[in-house]
Amino acid sequence: MQKKIFLNESDMPTHWYNIVADMPNKPLPPLNPKTKQPVGPEDLAPLFPMELIKQEVSAERYIEIPDEVREIYKIWRPSPLFRATGLEKMLDTPAKIYYKYEGVSPSGSHKPNTAVAQAYYNKMEGVKKITTETGAGQWGTALSFACAQFGIECEVYMVRVSYDQKPYRKIMMNTFGASVYPSPSNRTNAGRAILGKNPDSSGSLGIAISEAIEMAVQNDTTKYALGSVLNHVLLHQTIIGQESIKQLEYAGDYPDVVIAPLGGGSNFAGIAFPFLHDNLVNGKNVRLLAVEPASCPKLTQGEFMYDFGDTAGYTPLLPMYTLGHNFQPAAIHAGGLRYHGASVLCSQLLKDGLIDAVALQQLECFEAGVKFAKSEGVIPAPEATHGIAQVIREAEQAKKEGREKTILFNMCGHGFVDMQAYNDYFEGKLTNHTFGENELKEGLTEIRSMQPSA
Amino acid sequence: MQKKIFLNESDMPTHWYNIVADMPNKPLPPLNPKTKQPVGPEDLAPLFPMELIKQEVSAERYIEIPDEVREIYKIWRPSPLFRATGLEKMLDTPAKIYYKYEGVSPSGSHKPNTAVAQAYYNKMEGVKKITTETGAGQWGTALSFACAQFGIECEVYMVRVSYDQKPYRKIMMNTFGASVYPSPSNRTNAGRAILGKNPDSSGSLGIAISEAIEMAVQNDTTKYALGSVLNHVLLHQTIIGQESIKQLEYAGDYPDVVIAPLGGGSNFAGIAFPFLHDNLVNGKNVRLLAVEPASCPKLTQGEFMYDFGDTAGYTPLLPMYTLGHNFQPAAIHAGGLRYHGASVLCSQLLKDGLIDAVALQQLECFEAGVKFAKSEGVIPAPEATHGIAQVIREAEQAKKEGREKTILFNMCGHGFVDMQAYNDYFEGKLTNHTFGENELKEGLTEIRSMQPSA
Repeated sequence: MQKKIFLNESDMPTHWYNIVADMPNKPLPPLNPKTKQPVGPEDLAPLFPMELIKQEVSAERYIEIPDEVREIYKIWRPSPLFRATGLEKMLDTPAKIYYKYEGVSPSGSHKPNTAVAQAYYNKMEGVKKITTETGAGQWGTALSFACAQFGIECEVYMVRVSYDQKPYRKIMMNTFGASVYPSPSNRTNAGRAILGKNPDSSGSLGIAISEAIEMAVQNDTTKYALGSVLNHVLLHQTIIGQESIKQLEYAGDYPDVVIAPLGGGSNFAGIAFPFLHDNLVNGKNVRLLAVEPASCPKLTQGEFMYDFGDTAGYTPLLPMYTLGHNFQPAAIHAGGLRYHGASVLCSQLLKDGLIDAVALQQLECFEAGVKFAKSEGVIPAPEATHGIAQVIREAEQAKKEGREKTILFNMCGHGFVDMQAYNDYFEGKLTNHTFGENELKEGLTEIRSMQPSA
Repeated sequence: MQKKIFLNESDMPTHWYNIVADMPNKPLPPLNPKTKQPVGPEDLAPLFPMELIKQEVSAERYIEIPDEVREIYKIWRPSPLFRATGLEKMLDTPAKIYYKYEGVSPSGSHKPNTAVAQAYYNKMEGVKKITTETGAGQWGTALSFACAQFGIECEVYMVRVSYDQKPYRKIMMNTFGASVYPSPSNRTNAGRAILGKNPDSSGSLGIAISEAIEMAVQNDTTKYALGSVLNHVLLHQTIIGQESIKQLEYAGDYPDVVIAPLGGGSNFAGIAFPFLHDNLVNGKNVRLLAVEPASCPKLTQGEFMYDFGDTAGYTPLLPMYTLGHNFQPAAIHAGGLRYHGASVLCSQLLKDGLIDAVALQQLECFEAGVKFAKSEGVIPAPEATHGIAQVIREAEQAKKEGREKTILFNMCGHGFVDMQAYNDYFEGKLTNHTFGENELKEGLTEIRSMQPSA
């Protein structure tokens, strides 16, 4: 049986797919937190190149991928689709399991799909430097690589605690030529203010965002980049799902369910939106299932309302499923899933019942990750184990019901630079997390007062 | 231009290629160190399954790859061949540069090509457990993965200093289900003897080998496995070069020079031997160039004579280019290249002028590695940077001479779990190494007394 399905480079999709075109209810606009009025392109211009702002608000169904971006994509794209024959055998399941593997990219995750596109549009508009924040480091690594391709300087503010705990990620960024600063840093007013109060601050993504934004707005040729949540970021990831559909065609198959972990939403959107197009336009009926960690369950326990995208409250108000921008998720190793909200597009689709969500505990996820490593030979990133755990649930259900079922999941990255997480798991240092409902209630009460009047 | 050349799984070679069949001078036999008589299969039977011993002494040109092994190979094989368009552009060279990328394997290097084969033959002969040693951890990881595929227990003795310095490698082995012990350990007589003298011993590959061998010979269903040097190990790697030839055919190209780093010889042999077959049998004239570290230059400064394969002197005497089995190479990060001798097959071929060798300093190699990461998006293992540095030399030479030239090299692994090496390089902690000629003279004098009488 064929294990891997590759596409030729000439079969690589030529356009990104924009789900907005097919959404029955269009996403609500982001709001200015003071005026509660919709934010216009001019508000975003200091941060992003105009072409990305246009994509952010576009309702065109297909947006062409520039040739220069496609050339760089060829380093790792089209990415392989695998039949998980080893896992199927281990589970003794009648289900057919496929996974799209994004770990073959330069940074080892799906993030370069948007990083390269963003770096390209910045380059076209004369940008010399891009600033960003990074937590666990996946996004910072991807942007560092992308900037190196276009000769753009890259400056990364890395949350202090991750900077200290995950030195390999920092070194990877340095290797691609980026400057990496632990955040809070003394390079910005925002950083200095925090350090003034607490010189030992371990930082947060919110602080790092404000440092990166502060550096970007100071200079016309410096811009800022974000690795998830925004519409244009999700757009760039849709190449994943489009390739998967073609690859499954070659395999003569089509999924009953598509599974992916959801942090901000770009990984999930990347594989799910092209299948959702099939549901909405081509009469298909595939279940689209986002998996979130039980310790940060915005989709299954959060509420749909306007909230800030960042902890510090610098962004516009975004309509999304949220646990409140002050919610502090437990320090699970799946750093990419520790985000209080879900992207506007994913949130609207969940509200409209077009996608589903489930929350899983981390011990089940790591157990699944080890099974996958042994049976498939690929050690998954902690984020990716959430998808795998749900796949195993579905495959076991199929076995119980004695029916064939085709499962596709997005294996968003490898775990080579996250091995400490596995060690903590083996040593029994990890626990499951009871979600703090009281904390949630408090956080959401605060946000309720910020909602625009109906 | 096409960036990657893939083969279909159905195009995967069905046989390994055995260079012995085509060597004008056959390799000299290994000798019993006491009797100086050739070692027979029965001497190796306590350590290896009979099928591998047969391969070790075979002169058959092609040996069939079992279907079960090919099935597991499909997890990552055929591996991709890349055109290094980014590096070519960065160097502004008229040379065409191709690289065969073995980093896509489960352990991130070429090692699983032989690990899977060895685990398979052990399984067929009823072996329940395989012991081995590992230094930096590449080999131990590969064997751990391979054993997991066949349900064989795997026990790895990891040199203490690496065990402490490279925890990620140890955790990877654990994830694939292996038991990993720092060596010297108190599990063996050999280990206990060392610890008795020096409880803080940082270990050595020689000690780890003796621990693994001691555990293997105690039990009929336990065997031992080695990751390089031996003929059957080199044999299994020849799938690399065979695939490369097919892939270059699809690209309509053929190399003028094939380059690979050489530690024990399996990586070099893997890509070079099938091209050497073309030289010897098909009238081709491709230069085959092994790259070794200047700090461990057995090929360019060692002598061809009989020596032990290990530091402790447990192995048969092998005819090879050696710096003396007591030679202690500098602690460079390219751990896989820190071996005092070259495999019997590579040594005989070098002696006969059928392959070439060059020694490079590590600063040049890391500089090359960083260039490669930025231009090609793949961070190379420290071992692999040795090949890249030589590629850059050849490409710059081609530019100077203004002539086209086709260069192929074996990119034997990625550097995701070796990032500390890059950090040390960036922080200026690494130096070049002047090779100690006096030390060499002393080591070789000792060995001269062990040679069989002519």
